[in-house]
Amino acid sequence: MAKTIKPLGARVLVELGEVKDVKKGGIIIPDSAKEKPIEGVVRAIGKKRDEDGKEIPFDVKINDKVLLPKYGGTEVKFDDGKEYQLVREDDLLGVIVE
Amino acid sequence: MAKTIKPLGARVLVELGEVKDVKKGGIIIPDSAKEKPIEGVVRAIGKKRDEDGKEIPFDVKINDKVLLPKYGGTEVKFDDGKEYQLVREDDLLGVIVE
Amino acid sequence: MAKTIKPLGARVLVELGEVKDVKKGGIIIPDSAKEKPIEGVVRAIGKKRDEDGKEIPFDVKINDKVLLPKYGGTEVKFDDGKEYQLVREDDLLGVIVE
Amino acid sequence: MAKTIKPLGARVLVELGEVKDVKKGGIIIPDSAKEKPIEGVVRAIGKKRDEDGKEIPFDVKINDKVLLPKYGGTEVKFDDGKEYQLVREDDLLGVIVE
Amino acid sequence: MAKTIKPLGARVLVELGEVKDVKKGGIIIPDSAKEKPIEGVVRAIGKKRDEDGKEIPFDVKINDKVLLPKYGGTEVKFDDGKEYQLVREDDLLGVIVE
Amino acid sequence: MAKTIKPLGARVLVELGEVKDVKKGGIIIPDSAKEKPIEGVVRAIGKKRDEDGKEIPFDVKINDKVLLPKYGGTEVKFDDGKEYQLVREDDLLGVIVE
Amino acid sequence: MAKTIKPLGARVLVELGEVKDVKKGGIIIPDSAKEKPIEGVVRAIGKKRDEDGKEIPFDVKINDKVLLPKYGGTEVKFDDGKEYQLVREDDLLGVIVE
Repeated sequence: MAKTIKPLGARVLVELGEVKDVKKGGIIIPDSAKEKPIEGVVRAIGKKRDEDGKEIPFDVKINDKVLLPKYGGTEVKFDDGKEYQLVREDDLLGVIVE
Repeated sequence: MAKTIKPLGARVLVELGEVKDVKKGGIIIPDSAKEKPIEGVVRAIGKKRDEDGKEIPFDVKINDKVLLPKYGGTEVKFDDGKEYQLVREDDLLGVIVE
Repeated sequence: MAKTIKPLGARVLVELGEVKDVKKGGIIIPDSAKEKPIEGVVRAIGKKRDEDGKEIPFDVKINDKVLLPKYGGTEVKFDDGKEYQLVREDDLLGVIVE
Repeated sequence: MAKTIKPLGARVLVELGEVKDVKKGGIIIPDSAKEKPIEGVVRAIGKKRDEDGKEIPFDVKINDKVLLPKYGGTEVKFDDGKEYQLVREDDLLGVIVE
Repeated sequence: MAKTIKPLGARVLVELGEVKDVKKGGIIIPDSAKEKPIEGVVRAIGKKRDEDGKEIPFDVKINDKVLLPKYGGTEVKFDDGKEYQLVREDDLLGVIVE
Repeated sequence: MAKTIKPLGARVLVELGEVKDVKKGGIIIPDSAKEKPIEGVVRAIGKKRDEDGKEIPFDVKINDKVLLPKYGGTEVKFDDGKEYQLVREDDLLGVIVE
Repeated sequence: MAKTIKPLGARVLVELGEVKDVKKGGIIIPDSAKEKPIEGVVRAIGKKRDEDGKEIPFDVKINDKVLLPKYGGTEVKFDDGKEYQLVREDDLLGVIVE
């Protein structure tokens, strides 16, 4: 039975790396970029609240392909061998659309 | 008679370490991770309030298995030999679910 | 089929560089400028929200020619060979008008 | 006639040190802890207000046994030979309960 | 056809320098001043909004002669040979009146 | 005719030093204290306002004996030879009561 | 015809220095003071607004004699030979009263 992580607060869980159909015909991150973004797929989202405790919807949803900064989140690995990053949604840069 | 700590404010008390059924088949924290998260179990929660003093519910509950940053909370030890960390809920990264 | 990026939050996607009809008869950025701004065209905008989660309109729109600081956003390249920058709208300096 | 201090704002006055029945059978602060907490007893509380000036109740009360960070408050000594610390309630870590 | 810049957000566009009728009989900035202000004329203003997205009026208007800090804004030059600075209104120090 | 200072904003004017009946039988500040508090008497208070400009009452009043941090306020001397400190009320630590 | 400066935002214009009837019989700033305040007279005030853009009254008025920190504002000189400082009202320490 698979384990996973339910992100807390305004965080999302992003699976990193070889997201195939994004790599080809897609976006190239220039080497000269000061803070190189990476690609990933949103696998889980947390629960955002405003100051009064009411829930606020996320702007990303499960399976969204996203650009995120390389540093800023926390890396975790499941025993499925995949790499993930727990990152605050506000740190995500954009959603890759076709 | 056992003693314990009731966390204050938005803090939770997390028991650290060898949480057995999480370790196997579970999550591996990569050595390369800049800020290595650790695992634990929520043993007590505080009382969160909004700016007007009204209570706000926590997103974690007692017995939740959580990922938390290694540094950021305050370590305490009870004479049961176990290690705990007092940490603000907002610093918890995620809940481990099966 | 072209891919692009939908910026997240208060960010916009700006295409950088040789925006021809702006270059001639236009604005010259002095070499002595401490933080040299650059020119670009807004190609996509995100979704801004106030503290209660309600949407707030952007002050720029698609195709606006803008001045932006050279550093501050995140560079991305599509395979159309063009350079882009993902930048928070609040960091944009002005809209170039004729 | 004894003198004491009424803490101002969100501060509490904590008597530090040999709180006997807490020491035995109780909590051990590991030497390795980066920021070692200490124990104490709340002897006086201030008056907290929200942004509109209305009072907000404290989460601790007189005689609560508390864990507090060693540094962060201001030490004062009465001529009863006891040591005290004036500390903001938000800096208290938890209440020791039995 | 002249080009210009519409400042974004709470910014104004200030034309710097030899504002003749201000120079004579006017204000002298002491050399000893730690942060020497400079003079200029407001040529364009942006659009300020409060937290809910509603517009807030500016305290300066087009053609106001203003004192502004030398550093803090972003310099731009049009091909009219004049120097400008894009600066947040809150950084303007005062309006020169006669 | 005596001169004095009406503090502005959330500040109070505190007369420092040999407050006789506090010194004896009173509070001793340990030499080891990192930030040694000092004693004084509130001689004047300012006018506090919330974000909407409405007045908020102070928690101290004229003639209150207070503990305040040695550094943090601004020292002034009247020609009565006494030393005073202008300090924000929020920096006062506590009121000395008997 | 005299020129002057209308301060912007929450700033006031303070004329510095030999304010005669304040100097004699008045306030002495100790040499040991870490941040020596200086004296001046308020010659003009700006316009303060709350977050919704509504005006908030100033706590000082024209001709008030004030204490202000030596550094923190911006010095300007008119050709009347007098020195002035543009300073945010919140940085003024107090009003000198007789």
